Amino acid sequence: MFNDILQALSDKTPGALGAVLMGYDGIAIAATGFAAGETLDIQMIAIEYANVLKEIRNAAAVLAIGELEEVDIQTRRYRFVIRAITDEYFVALTLSKDGNVGKGRYLLRRDAELFREALQ
Amino acid sequence: MFNDILQALSDKTPGALGAVLMGYDGIAIAATGFAAGETLDIQMIAIEYANVLKEIRNAAAVLAIGELEEVDIQTRRYRFVIRAITDEYFVALTLSKDGNVGKGRYLLRRDAELFREALQ
Repeated sequence: MFNDILQALSDKTPGALGAVLMGYDGIAIAATGFAAGETLDIQMIAIEYANVLKEIRNAAAVLAIGELEEVDIQTRRYRFVIRAITDEYFVALTLSKDGNVGKGRYLLRRDAELFREALQ
Repeated sequence: MFNDILQALSDKTPGALGAVLMGYDGIAIAATGFAAGETLDIQMIAIEYANVLKEIRNAAAVLAIGELEEVDIQTRRYRFVIRAITDEYFVALTLSKDGNVGKGRYLLRRDAELFREALQ
């Protein structure tokens, strides 16, 4: 179930390299992609994602700026779209530098409810 | 000089609440905005921004995903556009939930070179 939603998310987003549903504890629940010649290691990514998201959640709590909804990160080589699903889980979509971030963001926002239902 | 660029950035971005140029050490070099009735404290924000950005930089180094360029954060109440300027400094633009993030991102990307020149 999780894999189907992640796979559809990846397939429908031009430039998507992979997607992962994971907990703030750094453990991936389900993942798709990251195959063909990619140097990105899904488990390493998962742990680093979790560190970053926890830091942002902490900052959001300290500043009382409201619950974290989405984080987009752009580096010289990749784009990342990360969306909070529940208090415990989030989905991270990795794209190539020229990937369609807008499409990915839209699909993730749309599918958040699907993930929430599947997690119940 | 810094203040002029930050002020123009804020003025030209619909929904902008304030902007700050700061170091990864958590110290603000210049700031504008955050006045009318806002509960956001610029110094507290600066420190939390720095914590978040340092964590993302660390993650980017561990994963070898290339230098950090931009981070966009969306919470239930605010939007943040954060752009790396140099190895030591970044600019963070805070917007209301319905602010024009696209315009802010564009202006920050465009003005990055101005900040770099002013920092020299």
